[in-house]
Amino acid sequence: MNPTRPLQQHEEIAAWLRDAIGTREFSPGDPLPSEAELCRRFNSSRGPVRQAMATLRSEGLISSGRGRRSTVLETTPTETFEATISATTAFQRLGAIPGQETRWVARRPAPADVAAALGVAEGGPIVSVHRLRLADAVPVLVERQNYPLEIGRHLLDFDPDAGSVHRRLLDAGVDYDNLARSFDAIPADADDAELLDIAPGTPLLRLTLRAFTRAGEPVEFSDYRYRSDLVTLGVNTVRGNPSPLWMEIRR
Amino acid sequence: MNPTRPLQQHEEIAAWLRDAIGTREFSPGDPLPSEAELCRRFNSSRGPVRQAMATLRSEGLISSGRGRRSTVLETTPTETFEATISATTAFQRLGAIPGQETRWVARRPAPADVAAALGVAEGGPIVSVHRLRLADAVPVLVERQNYPLEIGRHLLDFDPDAGSVHRRLLDAGVDYDNLARSFDAIPADADDAELLDIAPGTPLLRLTLRAFTRAGEPVEFSDYRYRSDLVTLGVNTVRGNPSPLWMEIRR
Repeated sequence: MNPTRPLQQHEEIAAWLRDAIGTREFSPGDPLPSEAELCRRFNSSRGPVRQAMATLRSEGLISSGRGRRSTVLETTPTETFEATISATTAFQRLGAIPGQETRWVARRPAPADVAAALGVAEGGPIVSVHRLRLADAVPVLVERQNYPLEIGRHLLDFDPDAGSVHRRLLDAGVDYDNLARSFDAIPADADDAELLDIAPGTPLLRLTLRAFTRAGEPVEFSDYRYRSDLVTLGVNTVRGNPSPLWMEIRR
Repeated sequence: MNPTRPLQQHEEIAAWLRDAIGTREFSPGDPLPSEAELCRRFNSSRGPVRQAMATLRSEGLISSGRGRRSTVLETTPTETFEATISATTAFQRLGAIPGQETRWVARRPAPADVAAALGVAEGGPIVSVHRLRLADAVPVLVERQNYPLEIGRHLLDFDPDAGSVHRRLLDAGVDYDNLARSFDAIPADADDAELLDIAPGTPLLRLTLRAFTRAGEPVEFSDYRYRSDLVTLGVNTVRGNPSPLWMEIRR
């Protein structure tokens, strides 16, 4: 979405509905207003109203509504683009107070896997951040973030206990354009276990994030390990829409 | 999307681009045709072309393209709505030969958690299917599917080794309208471990699926346990678009 151009009518209607769902003006299970009501409210023809509903369906917010009023789905996404890159923002949007204990921020030689993902030479300089994250003072997530030096240098004079690393990078003009997140399950190692106050070997939900600029250059390669008993991730899909998930099978 | 109405032009353009990406006519990293080229090809004004690109961005298929050509993203979703409910379809779309070994199909009393999810009385009749799924003859997934009796009865005279359970239910007219899938990490129990040929306690990626009719009635409540070393799930997000993921923090 280009922030400099005015919203089209269907975008305005979609934004209004998204807000009304986000603030629970319309709660899960509630029917949305009828097409006719939305047309009146926005002084709109049916086209933009239908298009706004299609957008909300593709986002997993409302049911398909074939022959019925669409209703708000039970579990609805709360993540803005910024919340996808920032646990601070994600926790805040869920009403939890974000906290952190920084283990270290380091300029260091890139290990092979990180070098490959960031497109830098193995052993070349990167900046890494290793933090325990808390939600309402409960340890829920171990973060290991890695950046190419020209991006990570913005973090070397920043106190990561003071706030969001990603806010700092966005403010420095880093071009987070698109990202891929993948999920797997791994056993907690001794370090994870101590930080998260669980037994070593406990399964953790790992989210691996790769972020890119609009030109496709790597910005970040990070490893997020969630206490799976405390944090759930999910996705809604509505008939007629492709699923936003991809799957890979190793062979 | 209403299958009975003709596609609008932006939907036609989006479908063509989605296909071209799916068939690798445009591969990851490739730039898409320019707006002007797409306008010529579809004899269209800029509006529908821009709208088609916005749709593909919200689906995580192409980069944001602010001031540049949008490019095809590295990992692209392959899941149709049917593939989200059917491992058979999902594996086929990835070029793997789906297989299964059925452990049992049973009419049985609903355990408490399944009863609550399906909206039936605890101990009331449900139909459950328990299968090991293979991709190219390798065990990758243990399925435990549960249906209310009036839906599951279609499976009691069906050989689940013969094909897709979901195809059977769709053919029987079951109204899969929308679904929520959540992810967590759990240790393999003795049964999982034997089926998947791994050590007990190995972390598995569990996907819990709840499916509903358009009226919000539960259709299915299922548990899918993937070998996390063989199957990866993920999601792409493009700047300016909300993430399709939701997060919950237990408190």
